[in-house]
Amino acid sequence: MDEKYGNALHGGGSNMLGLRIGVLVAVCAALCAAIVLPAARPAPQASPQGQASLAPAALANDPKLIEDLVYANRILYQQDVLDGFGHVSVRSDKDPSHFLMSRSMAPALVTSNDIMEYDRDGEPVDARGRNSYVERYIHAAIYRVRPDVKAIVHSHSPDIIPYSVTGTTLRPVYHVSAFLRLGAPIFDTQEGFGDTDMLIRDNKLGDALAKVLGNSGVALIRGHGFVAVANSIPIVVYRAIYTQTNARVQAEGMKLGTIKYLTPGEAEKAQAIVEATVGRPWELWKSQVGKIQ
Amino acid sequence: MDEKYGNALHGGGSNMLGLRIGVLVAVCAALCAAIVLPAARPAPQASPQGQASLAPAALANDPKLIEDLVYANRILYQQDVLDGFGHVSVRSDKDPSHFLMSRSMAPALVTSNDIMEYDRDGEPVDARGRNSYVERYIHAAIYRVRPDVKAIVHSHSPDIIPYSVTGTTLRPVYHVSAFLRLGAPIFDTQEGFGDTDMLIRDNKLGDALAKVLGNSGVALIRGHGFVAVANSIPIVVYRAIYTQTNARVQAEGMKLGTIKYLTPGEAEKAQAIVEATVGRPWELWKSQVGKIQ
Amino acid sequence: MDEKYGNALHGGGSNMLGLRIGVLVAVCAALCAAIVLPAARPAPQASPQGQASLAPAALANDPKLIEDLVYANRILYQQDVLDGFGHVSVRSDKDPSHFLMSRSMAPALVTSNDIMEYDRDGEPVDARGRNSYVERYIHAAIYRVRPDVKAIVHSHSPDIIPYSVTGTTLRPVYHVSAFLRLGAPIFDTQEGFGDTDMLIRDNKLGDALAKVLGNSGVALIRGHGFVAVANSIPIVVYRAIYTQTNARVQAEGMKLGTIKYLTPGEAEKAQAIVEATVGRPWELWKSQVGKIQ
Amino acid sequence: MDEKYGNALHGGGSNMLGLRIGVLVAVCAALCAAIVLPAARPAPQASPQGQASLAPAALANDPKLIEDLVYANRILYQQDVLDGFGHVSVRSDKDPSHFLMSRSMAPALVTSNDIMEYDRDGEPVDARGRNSYVERYIHAAIYRVRPDVKAIVHSHSPDIIPYSVTGTTLRPVYHVSAFLRLGAPIFDTQEGFGDTDMLIRDNKLGDALAKVLGNSGVALIRGHGFVAVANSIPIVVYRAIYTQTNARVQAEGMKLGTIKYLTPGEAEKAQAIVEATVGRPWELWKSQVGKIQ
Repeated sequence: MDEKYGNALHGGGSNMLGLRIGVLVAVCAALCAAIVLPAARPAPQASPQGQASLAPAALANDPKLIEDLVYANRILYQQDVLDGFGHVSVRSDKDPSHFLMSRSMAPALVTSNDIMEYDRDGEPVDARGRNSYVERYIHAAIYRVRPDVKAIVHSHSPDIIPYSVTGTTLRPVYHVSAFLRLGAPIFDTQEGFGDTDMLIRDNKLGDALAKVLGNSGVALIRGHGFVAVANSIPIVVYRAIYTQTNARVQAEGMKLGTIKYLTPGEAEKAQAIVEATVGRPWELWKSQVGKIQ
Repeated sequence: MDEKYGNALHGGGSNMLGLRIGVLVAVCAALCAAIVLPAARPAPQASPQGQASLAPAALANDPKLIEDLVYANRILYQQDVLDGFGHVSVRSDKDPSHFLMSRSMAPALVTSNDIMEYDRDGEPVDARGRNSYVERYIHAAIYRVRPDVKAIVHSHSPDIIPYSVTGTTLRPVYHVSAFLRLGAPIFDTQEGFGDTDMLIRDNKLGDALAKVLGNSGVALIRGHGFVAVANSIPIVVYRAIYTQTNARVQAEGMKLGTIKYLTPGEAEKAQAIVEATVGRPWELWKSQVGKIQ
Repeated sequence: MDEKYGNALHGGGSNMLGLRIGVLVAVCAALCAAIVLPAARPAPQASPQGQASLAPAALANDPKLIEDLVYANRILYQQDVLDGFGHVSVRSDKDPSHFLMSRSMAPALVTSNDIMEYDRDGEPVDARGRNSYVERYIHAAIYRVRPDVKAIVHSHSPDIIPYSVTGTTLRPVYHVSAFLRLGAPIFDTQEGFGDTDMLIRDNKLGDALAKVLGNSGVALIRGHGFVAVANSIPIVVYRAIYTQTNARVQAEGMKLGTIKYLTPGEAEKAQAIVEATVGRPWELWKSQVGKIQ
Repeated sequence: MDEKYGNALHGGGSNMLGLRIGVLVAVCAALCAAIVLPAARPAPQASPQGQASLAPAALANDPKLIEDLVYANRILYQQDVLDGFGHVSVRSDKDPSHFLMSRSMAPALVTSNDIMEYDRDGEPVDARGRNSYVERYIHAAIYRVRPDVKAIVHSHSPDIIPYSVTGTTLRPVYHVSAFLRLGAPIFDTQEGFGDTDMLIRDNKLGDALAKVLGNSGVALIRGHGFVAVANSIPIVVYRAIYTQTNARVQAEGMKLGTIKYLTPGEAEKAQAIVEATVGRPWELWKSQVGKIQ
């Protein structure tokens, strides 16, 4: 076959023609492949704004940290935990008093070029004209007092709001949300701050939220949303998603009858085993997002 | 044909052949790209009807006004606020006593060619055989008495109907729907008009609705739907979407316990900050709609 | 590169080569186009079974009748009114004692080749080995006693079942479902037939159902589903869809408070105007289904 | 045309060129076809891990058994019964004391290469480094005591959890879920095992679950999920899907009023007829999954 192949090539124009056709059709096939991969939720068009002159890889020692952070944004959007609002951050692996988060934009559109570095007070290290999330102080404050926390999600999930405004405690209804055994306290900006615009817009509010969070994995913010914290990106994404699922299941259970929640012993064991296998859902969620341009 | 075909090929036919291959593959690639962009909600096929001989751009000084109006239609359909029914309008920037709205058709299919101009009484300026929405008087009446209002949405949202038929007041449960602090009064056509077909089909009904709306950002219409008003298209679209979300969250909260709503002070501050940042969700929603043919 | 290109073309085979490339790429483009058109709900693959030797067009004087019937199947599937079960029929315009319906298969996959003709007793006119729906007697019985009815839908909608098993009457909550003013009686096979398999599998059961339906536009079948009837395909599809929507809205309203339903006068007027404009949603639903292969 | 065709072929290089073009375009067309077929739920990318040196067909006498098992995984994922967790198995047709199930991975990604064989104690026959589901003992234990059972599904369905934690019995509300007449007992790991991690991780727990299951078609596992069993893959998939649907419908019905469930006589007859026609929904669900790579 190689000889005939050589003859065909030697035929002159067929060489270049075949090559060009092969390239053109491969491009078409690649475009078709690009359609197979992405998710069912409307795929928005990224609109880059503000070019970072430092390659994002320089923001972390491990480039996978940046990659996972970008995936976290996309996954949380696709899993309906984040919409146009909300954000996710990771503690820096270069300077543990710093953290990384996207510039202020919709999580659905975040790429590695959008990741910025923040210092311990939540101020951007190298803004270069890019806007930051107003509520970055949620992240800064929690990183300051929780050395065990490596990643944080803030969401306005409609499923959580009813709990936050009725003072209902989220509790682990089933094994996948066993981490709720650590508590789901409710922070109310009214207490201590009176009438505010409800946003955690400075370190004082951030500190008050972190204080209420204590050692829990989740805290609700009355009339606003919730935060989830964990020691890795896959686990914090998992916790954000299953806090939301537990909220729906618990509400339905409360309408059916009296719920027998996980006992402290059950929840402790279940949390350990479920979070040890977080790789499986994490890989599935990443594959559902597909390749990120 | 074969002979001419052969001649064309022979005569530097490579030029034509390469060109034709390029065009055919580009067509295939363009079709593939057309799939990448549109949204997950079934993408309907536009069916133009009635050619406007005046270019739509002439309907407004700022062509972006028309473009935003078209996007508003598509976004509200994609966000499940409008279905086959409902409409959105914008006050004319050429003549503030006039307003612009699509001809009578499903919002999902609206293009700039479908936009028409209406006078202060809700009558089309230049119909040219095109049908108008029966309920354009909703828009005409509100524009007449609310000089601050620049855009209006009318929707039959199933999430809102339960509030309208039980006399339950929509109130701001969380910060994103703080604009509900302005009120969500319920207009009942029974009162003053007895048995009607429930549609706001003339200026008398429109005036009665506008009177109940007062200075609110939202009014419910019993057994029919609701209207949202604002001083810009992005904000009225935002309000329509979050009125619907608040309705779901409030209903769930009421099943869980007693809701602590936003205080007037919280709502005033939250509304200001949230509506100042409406650009972020607006851009995301536009990107989810993608390019409009 | 051009010279070698020219050489390859000069080899004669370029004529056929260009033609073959054009055809192959056009096929790829056509496949891509086939993707642009269909809907977001998983698009199943039709599996033809049993070739009709009579062209389906011969089953009706107006070929549009067949086309609308096929669209009705696809629309009702896409709008979540039908799933693997359920069916829709239309009275024959050749012989008004006959009716047309698909052979026994999932509505999502129905094409014009699957349409069969049934006589006044619900028996196939020309089966030719094709299976019929067990419950065709629902249709036969109603056509026999309701000369005004030209189209019928039978669905197992989960939203309707709760009403059928609790004896709760569906009533028009808002204008789009005003046709419910005609009644939504509940037929229970237990009464008169004792323990059955719940299916309307013969004319006796069909007659009993038709008797309970009376002059209503909708009847529920306890622990089974519902039927909707109307004088045209677009209206019966509309009624089936909005019976389901009304069921959801009414259930939510009943949880919020006491519902003020449409008065008889309001419902009569609203039904008239809404059903006069059924063309708009009908065209939108058809465009969402897209081209049917 | 034939002569020139012959010339082209005779030309040597064009033969290979034409062949290569045909192959490249067919690849593109196949990729396009792959888009037409799959479903609206985000289509994840399979990530093979661990090559089986035994062709999977050797695991069963009937290759269709393997094919149906793979489809069952994909269908249950698409129908929202399984997510990243959960699994489905089938009794081996070579050795009835053995069963077949995917290696430990997300059901959405399962292919025939991932199927493994397990012995009567739930241990892999030929692991070759591949991980097994921790909860395979659910399947092993039930196969041991239920010779009639040929297929099993285990799911964490959020719709079922509320029943499992409130001790509410799932009962057949309508004909499609008549199989619930066989019972839906609730197994609670607390009873007999105290605080565990909630997983059925050994044969003792499996035996206890199988004992509670008894002769039912479904058993709930408190704070965990449920299992469905049947004598074929299509029927067990059907039962898993409709257990979930019945859960939603029953919950809604209980909020509306007092439910009149199917009588034992109705349920027995309905189950027989509905399960005799499981082929129709099964074929529809397979076509919605489309071709599996």
